[in-house]
Amino acid sequence: MSEHTVKSFDEELAAIDTMIREMGELAASMVERATRAMVEADDGAVEQIIQDDKRMDQAQHDVDDAAVTLIAKRQPMAKDLRDVVCAIRTVGDLERIGDLAKNIAKRSRVMEEMPASRVLMQGLRDMSRLACVQVTGVVELYVADDAEGLTELRDRDEEIDIAYARVFRELLTYMMEDPHNITVCTHLLFCAKNLERIGDHATNIAENAYYMITGEQLPVKRPKRDELAGEPSAN
Amino acid sequence: MSEHTVKSFDEELAAIDTMIREMGELAASMVERATRAMVEADDGAVEQIIQDDKRMDQAQHDVDDAAVTLIAKRQPMAKDLRDVVCAIRTVGDLERIGDLAKNIAKRSRVMEEMPASRVLMQGLRDMSRLACVQVTGVVELYVADDAEGLTELRDRDEEIDIAYARVFRELLTYMMEDPHNITVCTHLLFCAKNLERIGDHATNIAENAYYMITGEQLPVKRPKRDELAGEPSAN
Repeated sequence: MSEHTVKSFDEELAAIDTMIREMGELAASMVERATRAMVEADDGAVEQIIQDDKRMDQAQHDVDDAAVTLIAKRQPMAKDLRDVVCAIRTVGDLERIGDLAKNIAKRSRVMEEMPASRVLMQGLRDMSRLACVQVTGVVELYVADDAEGLTELRDRDEEIDIAYARVFRELLTYMMEDPHNITVCTHLLFCAKNLERIGDHATNIAENAYYMITGEQLPVKRPKRDELAGEPSAN
Repeated sequence: MSEHTVKSFDEELAAIDTMIREMGELAASMVERATRAMVEADDGAVEQIIQDDKRMDQAQHDVDDAAVTLIAKRQPMAKDLRDVVCAIRTVGDLERIGDLAKNIAKRSRVMEEMPASRVLMQGLRDMSRLACVQVTGVVELYVADDAEGLTELRDRDEEIDIAYARVFRELLTYMMEDPHNITVCTHLLFCAKNLERIGDHATNIAENAYYMITGEQLPVKRPKRDELAGEPSAN
């Protein structure tokens, strides 16, 4: 393979990385704005977030097309092939993050009609902050090929799980105290769950990127927290 | 391109279709067993479903590898390339369906401790039945290249959305009637949401497969139901 060909492959891959970085920034920004819209019960930002979600969908298709074209044209092997496949998987997760952010944003329309406790909102705010850090961080580490950083980031997902468990329990107590809270709390419950899932998608990206860089699965440091670990089974 | 090469491509694609059909059957079976485990509050089937979810993960990786190898080796164009890319997307959706079924199954452990209304369970049973029909159907139509059938199937997703809206409202009333119902109802709420999302993944598969077959986006017959359409904003 001539040096020119090698360079072209790297250039095309770098172009894909740039698209992924932009998607990552947009995704983190969507999560932040969606949570703020919901917490402040202000649906003014919803339309923009819905538009951003469409941009994310389009960006995913663009990366998919670029990646598939690259595979067909260059027939990459080993690490190069892993890089391209990892790009396809990464944008799949980023697109889902955008989708989850959109769903959170849409609930701000409901919140406008119902006042909710500031204490509860604080829990969601904390979760959102943690989720944004994970999304921004994982894309940076992915682009930088930083396997060690990705390992640390993956392990930090537990903080979101713990924050989710707290919010879940708090929500239940509010619902039990006063049935008038039930409707709004179910919406908050779904928002909390979506933030937790955003963290899981960041974890997916970290695990795929680790495999891309090293060719090995990210070692299990902690058993993956059970989906229901944070949710009390009885009161 | 020699006939031999063409035949090989089709054979390799057929092998991928076979893997996808097996994943589809397993996914539908997981949804059915998970809902039964939950509805009957019997966690005896949970371990098997967790194992099945691992099989789904492995199957996704196997299809991904086979598809990427096929692209690199054959450099397919147009419809052939769409076929392979569609396979990658389809198994992504099937893997998520397995994941959602696993999450439903795990909640059966919680249900064992708490008796729940048979009326509520009927709603979930209906949703599960509809979801299984969609999952089984979409894979059959995908493998059969049946664009018309896929259009009809996509439109039937609305039935699941409507069933979800009913279950959501019922759950709220149970929670309001008696705070002791709140914990179990939040678990049922997540199960209902997961079944609705399983329907959405079947819709994704239908839309991707339609594009694969025709090269065009599936026409919008109905506006995609809003994520929150079924969830009442106030009481």
